[in-house]
Formats: sequence, C-alpha cells, structure tokens
Amino acid sequence: MSLFITFEGPDGSGKSTQIKLLAKYLEEKNIPFLLTREPGGTGISDQIRKVILDPNNKEMKNETEVLLYAASRAQHVREKIIPALKEGKIVLCDRFVDASIAYQGYGLGVPIEKVKEVNLFATGNLKPDRTYLLDISPEEGKERMLERLQRQGDTSLDRIELKESSYHETVREGFHTLYKENKDRMLLVHANRSVEEIFSDIKRDFNELIGKENIV
Amino acid sequence: MSLFITFEGPDGSGKSTQIKLLAKYLEEKNIPFLLTREPGGTGISDQIRKVILDPNNKEMKNETEVLLYAASRAQHVREKIIPALKEGKIVLCDRFVDASIAYQGYGLGVPIEKVKEVNLFATGNLKPDRTYLLDISPEEGKERMLERLQRQGDTSLDRIELKESSYHETVREGFHTLYKENKDRMLLVHANRSVEEIFSDIKRDFNELIGKENIV
Repeated sequence: MSLFITFEGPDGSGKSTQIKLLAKYLEEKNIPFLLTREPGGTGISDQIRKVILDPNNKEMKNETEVLLYAASRAQHVREKIIPALKEGKIVLCDRFVDASIAYQGYGLGVPIEKVKEVNLFATGNLKPDRTYLLDISPEEGKERMLERLQRQGDTSLDRIELKESSYHETVREGFHTLYKENKDRMLLVHANRSVEEIFSDIKRDFNELIGKENIV
Repeated sequence: MSLFITFEGPDGSGKSTQIKLLAKYLEEKNIPFLLTREPGGTGISDQIRKVILDPNNKEMKNETEVLLYAASRAQHVREKIIPALKEGKIVLCDRFVDASIAYQGYGLGVPIEKVKEVNLFATGNLKPDRTYLLDISPEEGKERMLERLQRQGDTSLDRIELKESSYHETVREGFHTLYKENKDRMLLVHANRSVEEIFSDIKRDFNELIGKENIV
C-alpha cells in the first residue's frame, strides 16, 4: 500500500520528533517507507535549498522565494516521492505545499491563489493522503524552541526571531484556514502536550487510515 | 523615457552581437540604459543560473527548469529591471519570458499555458515594449555557432548538440507562433544577413519607437 503523508506546523511544534516516531513505528512493523523533507530531499533540491537559506541572500524577493520552493518541490516530487509511491512505499514528508501557502502566502502576503497555482504546476497536482498539522501558539512554540536551543548549549536569542510574533500568528491563522478547507485530509493535532500524548493520537489515526488488520 | 526591450532568438542568430550594437548606439547618443541578460543579472539570479546550467544536474525535470528560470526572472525583474525603468532608463535584456515559452514550452513540451501562468506570476505581468526576434533556420544557426567556436579555437562538436535539430525546429516554430500572437510588440528580424544589415533594421525600428526627434 502506498500513502503520501505530510507533517506541517511551525518550528517548536515537535513536527520532526513526531515524523521520526512514525518512521520508527513503520520500521518496527516492517512497512516499507521513505522519510524525506522539504526543501531538499534530492541533490538538485539541496542546491536550491542552499540558495533559499543562504543568509547573504537578503535581497531575495517573495516571488523568488515562492518559485524556488516550488522548483525544489517539483524535483523532489518527481525524483523521489512519486517513485517511492510507485514502489508501494509510505512516504513521510516533513513539510509540503501547505507550508508554502501558510508561510509565503499568509505569512509574507503573496496572493494565496498564486501560491496555489504555482504549486499545482510544481506538484503535478499530487496531494497528500493525510496531513498531520501540529498546532501550537507562537508563544509556546517559541518557548519550546528556546528550551531546545538551550539544551543544545546554543543561547543566541536572535535565532528565535523574537520580534516577528505577529508574522507567526498570521502563519498559524493560515494553517487554520487550510485545515477548515481540507478537513478530509488534514488532522489538527494539539501540540501543547507531551510527545507521547501527541504520538498516540497520530498513531491511532494512522492505524485507522491503513486499516488496523494490516499491522497487527 | 523608459522602455523595456528584449532580444530573442536561438544561439547562432547573432542576438548578443545585435544587443551590444544597440547598447553602443545608446551610449553614443547619451541615452541612459541598462544592458542585462537572462538567466542571471543579479547575485541571487546568478546562483540560480549555476544550478540550471550545472552539467552534473542531468536529473533535472522540465518543471524544475521552468520554475528555476521563473525564480531567476522574478528576482531579475524586481531587483534590476523595474528599478532601471523607474530611473527612466532603456532596458535591453538578452532573453525573457518568450525564451521560456519557446524552449521549455514548445521545445520540451511543458504545457504552454502553464509556462505562461508561472511567468505571469514571476514578472508581475511586466511585458516588453519591444521584442526583436532574430529568426534563423536551425541549420544556419548551427553553422554560425560552429564558425564562432572554430574562430575561438574550440572544435568540440558535441557542444553543438548535433542530434537535436528537430528540437531546434520546434523551438523556432514556437517563436513564430509567439510572433503571430504578439505582432504589436514583436519585430521579426531575418538573421541570415550581415551584422550591418540586421542592425540597420533594428536601428530604424528603434528610432521610430522612441521618436526620431529625441536622438538627432
């Protein structure tokens, strides 16, 4: 069985932890899967990722950013995601089109319809079968990121983008709008709980999705 | 007076020679101008250009290529072309959206409407006031490129892409279709003539365009 599952949510929502837990679960059950992430995931996508994330590229325009994410995604979809789905794998992808709509569309103010249009072309209309949206308030997300950075011995507060809380609030509202429009494929997961509680919800939903009998 | 002028046509059509001649002419007349080219033209666009042209990126998908050219163009338009037009300059640009439609659309078979849609977003609907389309048969274009490479002491025939003559024919037909659809802004210039004859046509049209009285 092939399934395309995406994880969305802000930094600090525990998204990466949860996707790894689901990957571990699939590994234990001997279910073939591919764990991948955006932007990146292929050689060409990684080169594009470098251009997007290079801190020297301060002059980058919003439209350029939207198109670079879409270019990276077009490559990722065709070189990695679709082939894995064709091999019958479950694909777990850390961020996808919803992230562009939330961050570049709602967050940066690029017209939502344009972001959708460009990404429809980029993905060839490939849609996730399931999207786990990890929801957390910007304040809690920031606090968690701060805790993580401190655990890692990194106390550089400027990386938390303290002044941009209105931006993060707009992005969250964008994710909520996407959820309302896509309830058939999106599950809203309250992320202000323990790792175990969150994963318990995701695992329950996932088991229902693939039909429990397949993974006794 | 600000004007946005693009030059289109295949390699070997003499496009780069003609754009330089027009730049020289503007310089002599003390008309402020910007000479630029695609892909590239800004720091970020040049980084994108490297990804597009890297010979190791053999796995690049057509959709990725369309989006990378569009990303480079979005940056180029906003960082360089529009500011120059706002300063009242004449912008001479070596290749623009028409090239994407001809090469990626007609040439590679990406749906024309999609290439147009993505580029409409990339350019914010900036259209050239004038486009000089240098038209030459693939055979003559190839011959000219070959001559140029030999003059440069480069005899590596594989760079001529000998086997792709049907591709170049399709691109040429694409340019012709674009010409029929955009006669208001496009001038078809027969490029199988001497440099002087070609430039004489371009100069005459350009002088009409800006109104001869301005540049006695």
